[in-house]
Amino acid sequence: MDIREATREDFERIWPIFKEVAQAGDTYAYPRDIGKDEAARLWMDAPRKTYVCEADGRLLGTYYLKTNQPGPGAHVCNCGYMVASNARGRGAATAMCEHSQEQARRLGYRAMQFNFVAASNETAVRLWTRLGFATVGRLPGAFLHPSRGYVDALVMYKTLAP
Amino acid sequence: MDIREATREDFERIWPIFKEVAQAGDTYAYPRDIGKDEAARLWMDAPRKTYVCEADGRLLGTYYLKTNQPGPGAHVCNCGYMVASNARGRGAATAMCEHSQEQARRLGYRAMQFNFVAASNETAVRLWTRLGFATVGRLPGAFLHPSRGYVDALVMYKTLAP
Repeated sequence: MDIREATREDFERIWPIFKEVAQAGDTYAYPRDIGKDEAARLWMDAPRKTYVCEADGRLLGTYYLKTNQPGPGAHVCNCGYMVASNARGRGAATAMCEHSQEQARRLGYRAMQFNFVAASNETAVRLWTRLGFATVGRLPGAFLHPSRGYVDALVMYKTLAP
Repeated sequence: MDIREATREDFERIWPIFKEVAQAGDTYAYPRDIGKDEAARLWMDAPRKTYVCEADGRLLGTYYLKTNQPGPGAHVCNCGYMVASNARGRGAATAMCEHSQEQARRLGYRAMQFNFVAASNETAVRLWTRLGFATVGRLPGAFLHPSRGYVDALVMYKTLAP
């Protein structure tokens, strides 16, 4: 498994993963009918860095890293990770999260924050917890899940050792 | 005291307030040296609505209202309020926060969230608490205060009665 910075050309292979995740509507705060251009803007242009995770020439997943708040909050970064549905269970999310923490330290960030983790996304919550993230906030009913209705969203946070 | 939607022309009078607040660096996550055009983009263009609070023809304060997260989070709004330093203690913040909750309900939002309240900003924390906001999250050391160093940032949240 190899993780490297994404190029603009990679977006052709990122888009099917993004589309699948957004359409499911149960993990990310993106419109379910988001278009390709807007997705490219959010995933490739707005972040500070975007990465892809590959194995045997195949794209397993992707993540972005960005500054979570400007000015007095600029020492904390935010990341988002997506794994192709047919590539789950191979450790891509773990590998990308660990990679992102290294990159974040290298870029000088002191902490990493996830702003909006659906509490119903138990796989993700368990994984981030195992990787050292603490649940530091709970937003009551802030996430409208497509089948469960309003569920809480969690704020998760990890201070990065220098 | 009168609160109304801001026009683009109002920004000439908003900018001195914005600049003063950003330069102080102790409340908002904006770069302290932010320029006028970027401020206009963030305060006038990016939000869904921007308002001004006036008395006797003078601008006391301003606030914006926006959707905090798209898609599954789009029923929760976010607001930010600024009061001119020489207009403090007249209840402008309270009036704007109450006004914003009415506007939010009218626009169909079910909750209001403040993402990044410096815990050192005790006046604000006390005020939002009095106005019904709960502290639902605490981000350790997420706010770099100009004199106190790294202080916690709070996430505050209020469910709006329909």
